[in-house]
Amino acid sequence: MNNFVFHCPTEFVFGKQTENQIGELCNKHKARRIMIVYGGGSIIKTGLLKRVKDSLDNEDIETCELSGIQPNPIDTKVREGIVLARSFKPDLLLAIGGGSVIDTTKAIAVGYYYGGDFWDFYAGITKPEKALPVGVILTIPAAGSESSGNSVITNTTTHVKVGIRQPMLLRPVFAIMNPELTMTLPEWQTASGISDMMAHIFERYLSNTPDVEIGDRLAEGMLLAIMEVAPRVIKNPNDYEARANIMWCGTIAHNDTCSLGRQEDWNSHAMEHEISAEYDVTHGAGLSVIFPAFMQYAAQSNPNKIAQLAHRVLGVADTGDAKADALEGVKKLKNWYHDVLHLPVSFKELGIPNPDIELMNTRLHKLKGDILKGYVELNKDDTFKIYQLAL
Amino acid sequence: MNNFVFHCPTEFVFGKQTENQIGELCNKHKARRIMIVYGGGSIIKTGLLKRVKDSLDNEDIETCELSGIQPNPIDTKVREGIVLARSFKPDLLLAIGGGSVIDTTKAIAVGYYYGGDFWDFYAGITKPEKALPVGVILTIPAAGSESSGNSVITNTTTHVKVGIRQPMLLRPVFAIMNPELTMTLPEWQTASGISDMMAHIFERYLSNTPDVEIGDRLAEGMLLAIMEVAPRVIKNPNDYEARANIMWCGTIAHNDTCSLGRQEDWNSHAMEHEISAEYDVTHGAGLSVIFPAFMQYAAQSNPNKIAQLAHRVLGVADTGDAKADALEGVKKLKNWYHDVLHLPVSFKELGIPNPDIELMNTRLHKLKGDILKGYVELNKDDTFKIYQLAL
Repeated sequence: MNNFVFHCPTEFVFGKQTENQIGELCNKHKARRIMIVYGGGSIIKTGLLKRVKDSLDNEDIETCELSGIQPNPIDTKVREGIVLARSFKPDLLLAIGGGSVIDTTKAIAVGYYYGGDFWDFYAGITKPEKALPVGVILTIPAAGSESSGNSVITNTTTHVKVGIRQPMLLRPVFAIMNPELTMTLPEWQTASGISDMMAHIFERYLSNTPDVEIGDRLAEGMLLAIMEVAPRVIKNPNDYEARANIMWCGTIAHNDTCSLGRQEDWNSHAMEHEISAEYDVTHGAGLSVIFPAFMQYAAQSNPNKIAQLAHRVLGVADTGDAKADALEGVKKLKNWYHDVLHLPVSFKELGIPNPDIELMNTRLHKLKGDILKGYVELNKDDTFKIYQLAL
Repeated sequence: MNNFVFHCPTEFVFGKQTENQIGELCNKHKARRIMIVYGGGSIIKTGLLKRVKDSLDNEDIETCELSGIQPNPIDTKVREGIVLARSFKPDLLLAIGGGSVIDTTKAIAVGYYYGGDFWDFYAGITKPEKALPVGVILTIPAAGSESSGNSVITNTTTHVKVGIRQPMLLRPVFAIMNPELTMTLPEWQTASGISDMMAHIFERYLSNTPDVEIGDRLAEGMLLAIMEVAPRVIKNPNDYEARANIMWCGTIAHNDTCSLGRQEDWNSHAMEHEISAEYDVTHGAGLSVIFPAFMQYAAQSNPNKIAQLAHRVLGVADTGDAKADALEGVKKLKNWYHDVLHLPVSFKELGIPNPDIELMNTRLHKLKGDILKGYVELNKDDTFKIYQLAL
């Protein structure tokens, strides 16, 4: 186990009707001026925005709004938000939505104090030193951004989709999580969210760091819980209890609970980012396509951890042949994505029968370098073959 | 799943040589005057105290010391600490040790600002509203006090051993955790610590709240990890990796990671507190005596959760007969405590062949009321029988 620092000071307020505590929570954090960031009209239609503003009004908190954040959030919207924030001068940014809204809000939070263009942080030119505090009302369990220090933004000029990881600066100060708010999500979005959180766990789990038994067991526990309740959520979107389990899993899948003290492998996420940056597909659906392909490829040279996953989570009997068991596990995972979550497991099913693999692969390595390090080392040829396996 | 609030802002600095960061960490928390609290001479002998003071000296931080905290920590020492603190006026209390030292430090932290006697909080007469910040350098993984909001103190006049739970006030601001520091622990203390952390998990796991799949799976994961690495630690006290896994398990076993949204059952802990308050036994050893007896008794009327534990953690095959499986699980757990941890599983083995059950039972119900609510309801007769089962 490697040395680590774990600091997740986010206050989680979880359960029914908790959004009504927003005024009280902002007060506790001494926030008197709040900029609300959200996506489309759904939170207006459901009355959520009104309830939130009523609660803030009760505490005499002033607000302004930035709406229209789209899935796979973009740089231009961040800049719009920074301009608005600099004019309104909020002391807290409140994201109402899922990963795209929260990630945009975090980008505004760091951009607010920076003299140059915020993209400098995402391009790795410099690191943020200060950020406005971010609060969250979560409506889509998926990205785990409500308690992570991460933010992923797409550059509309260069088509680069890239993230920053600043756990000391960007973990939200609070996250209100009411599973009732997720009941109106369409099946496709629910399923993609589940795929996203599973990927966050896999990316921590697939590690060569030895002796991380506690992290492995926690990761397996999360996956077992997700795979147990997911069919209930898909069958009955109004199953509060199943929604609650999924929602909490999405948070701890990404707040480092199961990743401490180990090397991680985020190459599949990077490979997917190229797909969604080019074809604007839902991130979780891109992941259900790329992950089995990545595992199938990695199992050839480094099967052990994938075999362990197969044995402990995917119900594969231990035959003593790690590679065979790992491949059997990948098959089962693929079927599960397909049969239970009704998600695509190939480019074809994703609606992209002829993806431009050459283009995505070139962009991937331009961004990440010639060799992607991780559970297995991947050069240009390896990642090309993984994209091909996903056809 | 019930509504919950989870807020664990403790910063964990985990790994080799991390104690050398203490000066830096105190600086970060703007602490210029620190009162160090510790137990006996072991941290002097090992040089730990000197290293800590050197690191603090380097940052020009002033210190005073309160030593001599004993296992099953007592009220009189807390009062001594409050007097010292009021004279020294520290801006942070630094506990170096295990649960007893940390719990004493927390009691001083709340007593410092209170006009009356600190015991008022433990007697339930009033609640603390303010506390000095507490930092920790952990040397004994067991109590989980390094990230919990709990503190347990024994009243030397009344023999009452009782805890307070103030997660918003008493979670330490940071915890330095170097597994190397635990290598000098004798087997007995290591084993008792493991028993304590397992009890913390059982007490959250044994719940009638339905649909807490994620909490169950995390709890089972922690137990599986503990039971996997414990034999390594017992066999080779210098196994850093196994020590590291155990140390982190002890923390998350008690910081509510696996208990969110459910009713818990702390009756076994309360029953053990009567044993250690009267006979001054090691807490974890008292728990390995009382827990199997409690589970054996509870399995008669409410076997399901214990059977689930047996199936998923203790390697008992599912025969379809929950009660039989639960009892088989308890038998296996008892054998494991005995054979792997070399801990007592009866009063006799604990060196108390004729415990005064009547006395302990009377004190228990005087403190907790006629009926102990939880996974099963226990009246005076029930708890008497559980003590008897442990003979």
